[in-house]
Amino acid sequence: MTTYKDIKNAYQRISKHINKTPIFTSRSLNSKTGAELFLKCENLQRGGSFKMRGAVNAISQLTEEQKKKGIVTHSSGNHAQAVALSAKLLHIDATVVMPNTSPKVKIEATKDTYGANVVLCENSLQARQSTTKKLIDTYGYTLIHPYDNDAVIAGAGTAAYELLLQIKNLDFIFAPVGGGGLLSGTSIATKGFNKKIKIIGVEPENVDDAYRSLQSNRIQTNETTNSIADGLLTNLSERTFSIIKKYVDRIITISEEQILFAMKFIWERMKLVVEPSGACSLGGVLSNRIPVKNKKIGVIISGGNVDLSDFFEKYSRKISGF
Amino acid sequence: MTTYKDIKNAYQRISKHINKTPIFTSRSLNSKTGAELFLKCENLQRGGSFKMRGAVNAISQLTEEQKKKGIVTHSSGNHAQAVALSAKLLHIDATVVMPNTSPKVKIEATKDTYGANVVLCENSLQARQSTTKKLIDTYGYTLIHPYDNDAVIAGAGTAAYELLLQIKNLDFIFAPVGGGGLLSGTSIATKGFNKKIKIIGVEPENVDDAYRSLQSNRIQTNETTNSIADGLLTNLSERTFSIIKKYVDRIITISEEQILFAMKFIWERMKLVVEPSGACSLGGVLSNRIPVKNKKIGVIISGGNVDLSDFFEKYSRKISGF
Repeated sequence: MTTYKDIKNAYQRISKHINKTPIFTSRSLNSKTGAELFLKCENLQRGGSFKMRGAVNAISQLTEEQKKKGIVTHSSGNHAQAVALSAKLLHIDATVVMPNTSPKVKIEATKDTYGANVVLCENSLQARQSTTKKLIDTYGYTLIHPYDNDAVIAGAGTAAYELLLQIKNLDFIFAPVGGGGLLSGTSIATKGFNKKIKIIGVEPENVDDAYRSLQSNRIQTNETTNSIADGLLTNLSERTFSIIKKYVDRIITISEEQILFAMKFIWERMKLVVEPSGACSLGGVLSNRIPVKNKKIGVIISGGNVDLSDFFEKYSRKISGF
Repeated sequence: MTTYKDIKNAYQRISKHINKTPIFTSRSLNSKTGAELFLKCENLQRGGSFKMRGAVNAISQLTEEQKKKGIVTHSSGNHAQAVALSAKLLHIDATVVMPNTSPKVKIEATKDTYGANVVLCENSLQARQSTTKKLIDTYGYTLIHPYDNDAVIAGAGTAAYELLLQIKNLDFIFAPVGGGGLLSGTSIATKGFNKKIKIIGVEPENVDDAYRSLQSNRIQTNETTNSIADGLLTNLSERTFSIIKKYVDRIITISEEQILFAMKFIWERMKLVVEPSGACSLGGVLSNRIPVKNKKIGVIISGGNVDLSDFFEKYSRKISGF
């Protein structure tokens, strides 16, 4: 199991490749909650999410032979971008398996901005896994799993570790939970730093597999993908489940409306671009499920990658009409 | 004419009411330009724009009698929000004259969030001015003009002053120009701080009245309002024109496409919500009109108030469909 020391080592290892992300505060949020909130802005991380921390940490520890052969991941989300960008920085070949239904702009960005090879496949988890396996068997690529990987978890934990160095005397840290990599790393870092700080995982109630897993003490899955928090649709692995059971104080669930409310608040009032998954932790604080009055609260804003093409298309059309 | 000392005094006066806004940098921007860019994020100012600085500075210097009678402004933009919020903080009654065509959400925000009285009028400059004049005549309100006001200009100049204290050895400062209040204050602050720093005003070429005013040495007006930079449609006043003539090194114009490109870059890559007017200064740097290689450049990002209702409406519809 990943340890506090692993996270401190990861932080040393990755520091020169990542952004030390800023902390944002808001008078309105503090007066709304009666607490002091400190938003750890991983939407301002390189690649637009905390995923960069785990990707750099995992990739930089590969053997020379693994590095030479290259790496692979299957995802269309933040992890893929992070893996591609990390590989570019570390001069390693990366291949990203993406569903052929992915937006063209996303495929181009993965190729052009991040310089990764893209292999398209059918839009199913099975197709992605089998395509990835074939690439591994053929070329000897190393798979960088988005969360079921100790080095990725240690890297993810450096966001909370950095927050704890930036803001003293926190009482709580709220983090979103999908596959559990971020929540695992966050909880290890935090309990290692100070056992008294409470760790709250926040999950969309429509995809509350982690909540139910803790209740039933067995990994549960979701029957729908009905959440705007598209980064939180995945299930726990045995690895993340065992860490979460050990270190997380509570998982709370929030509605889609609560996610959207938090997201809107961050955009409109704090002027930050955040994705729905990234706003969940704040949604959890604002849900009032946990009494936070007079407390100091760290809130991990996990990422800011959203599709803005419709939004900007409106401006383009306006310009064409001039 | 507003002096450097006025700006330093304004900074003292307003500090406890405003945000010391952060500076954002971007590896991609620096490598794109070969320069070092420092974005002064007034989109993260209270009220969402630099206008708060001028409003607080002007309002806090009113006489007791003026304060008792209250203030008025006519605008549907950032200045109105800033005046309303400043008045609320300073416990003064504020009235905002708005066109009856203003979005309902904007009217409600001015009333609810900022606690101002709203008086609606026909949607023309003439109607706004005559309605405002009637209110002044009837109630003795003091008009807080958005830029043709020395205290407002001094307040606006504190953004550049703060930037100069945050980042040493700048070679250039780029700022947008509409009515010229921000550019006036910026140029006085900067030349007072160090005469060698060059001040570049950036204006949309579709509404290039300030550019033509400098060329012809007479205040010019625009024949269209064809710009997405809706904060920059106004003309200079004699007051701002004389300051700009004296202190600004150059005004450059950029296309609508260049404005949109800069805005998109800030949203997509830097994860900041910025309005089109607020992105103009960066658009000016990226236009290559001014050789900036190896230079240190301050870029005033003036505001971040954009209408996000369509964007969030899409998410609401998605949630309803679950």
